[in-house]
Amino acid sequence: MPSGNRMRYELYYWPSIQGRGEFVRLALEEAGADYVDVARRPARSGMGVPALMRLMGDATLERPPFAPPFLKAGRQLIAQTANILLYLGPRLRLAPRDEAGRLWAHQLQLTVTDFMKEVHDTHHPIAADLYYDEQRREARRYARHFLAGRLPKYLDYFERVLARNGGRWMVGAALTYVDLSMFQVVAGLRYAFPRAMARLAPGIPLLMALHRRVASRPRTAAYLKSKRRLPFNKQGLFRRYPELDLK
Amino acid sequence: MPSGNRMRYELYYWPSIQGRGEFVRLALEEAGADYVDVARRPARSGMGVPALMRLMGDATLERPPFAPPFLKAGRQLIAQTANILLYLGPRLRLAPRDEAGRLWAHQLQLTVTDFMKEVHDTHHPIAADLYYDEQRREARRYARHFLAGRLPKYLDYFERVLARNGGRWMVGAALTYVDLSMFQVVAGLRYAFPRAMARLAPGIPLLMALHRRVASRPRTAAYLKSKRRLPFNKQGLFRRYPELDLK
Repeated sequence: MPSGNRMRYELYYWPSIQGRGEFVRLALEEAGADYVDVARRPARSGMGVPALMRLMGDATLERPPFAPPFLKAGRQLIAQTANILLYLGPRLRLAPRDEAGRLWAHQLQLTVTDFMKEVHDTHHPIAADLYYDEQRREARRYARHFLAGRLPKYLDYFERVLARNGGRWMVGAALTYVDLSMFQVVAGLRYAFPRAMARLAPGIPLLMALHRRVASRPRTAAYLKSKRRLPFNKQGLFRRYPELDLK
Repeated sequence: MPSGNRMRYELYYWPSIQGRGEFVRLALEEAGADYVDVARRPARSGMGVPALMRLMGDATLERPPFAPPFLKAGRQLIAQTANILLYLGPRLRLAPRDEAGRLWAHQLQLTVTDFMKEVHDTHHPIAADLYYDEQRREARRYARHFLAGRLPKYLDYFERVLARNGGRWMVGAALTYVDLSMFQVVAGLRYAFPRAMARLAPGIPLLMALHRRVASRPRTAAYLKSKRRLPFNKQGLFRRYPELDLK
């Protein structure tokens, strides 16, 4: 495996939200990788959102991505969050060494992906190109079912995976990108659904402890305190609309 | 790479629908792989749905899956449709040989996964555990936006990928599992949304030709005519509810 820490990665993602890009940022940050968060750099330097838009509209790309985030690694352009982590995992030493372990880590990440789509749909159940206010009624109904069914189902599943692996890490005997993603899942859910999460937290003690364990790792802790970590807000994947949370 | 054609795979998926499992079935069939579609075998032989349920509830599994389909390959149990195809692709000679090509094929398959979730949500926009009739009003609104926006966006994207690769195959110079998946996407959409697809077909000539090219491959053609190919129906991913289609 080539030493990825010597490569300069370019991440392309929306500059004003954590969103799906955050799962990639967390891996790059925890590994101390050399990377540029392209769309957050000034447009006058040839970067910024115009660089992201140029790449998305580039008719000469043989392998065009469907949507951000993308990662440029040398001549490769990789999209789909979980696919980017599949690529980065071994290079950043954030994945198991054996193929079966890597597939298992990736399987968990794909389940995180499914979960995140359902979280997104709590505020956008009808269409991503309508405003929240245009689908509030449906969002309330969706969120009620989500909080009662899917949210505990996913969290219980991840808690079970953690328990069966000894309770400390999601996969194998060391931190992987899946642990970083679980940190982000818990952080985001606590932001978006503080009341529901307060209710569920006692039932998922291992996940809550994993969230703290990840947050206290030196590089991740430094990242979370830095300006590179965007705050949660009402444009991202996790949004705090009190009417969607438990009463 | 070990010769996967000598291994007997076990596929675990709901026995009465094509659903997400069909993407795996198509790959196994086109490759002439040795496989058992476990839940479709009789329960009295130790298989059937009870075998699927047993596996889902098995508290001794170190790496429990979240939801079907799963593939048992020797001692490995792999879940998530795109992850199963990532594993099977090289073993069934349905994926590129180089790592970059495999990641690209997988990236496209993950985009198919996203697309399929949105197709599913045309009939279940509020909750998967409610009946269609309990969310018809929301389904109509969702489907209207889906047909006007997301459906053409995804199809145009895949058409563009095909065009940039020369028009014959999605990835590289030979058939891959991505082509099989595109066949299934077109077949399912034509079943579920015949009027919308009749309208869109002239704009996606390469995809429509790929659908025919895949359907006429000897093994796939034999499979499609066999009883192993379940018919589309109103329990699966693709459902024909005329009120959700274009007028």
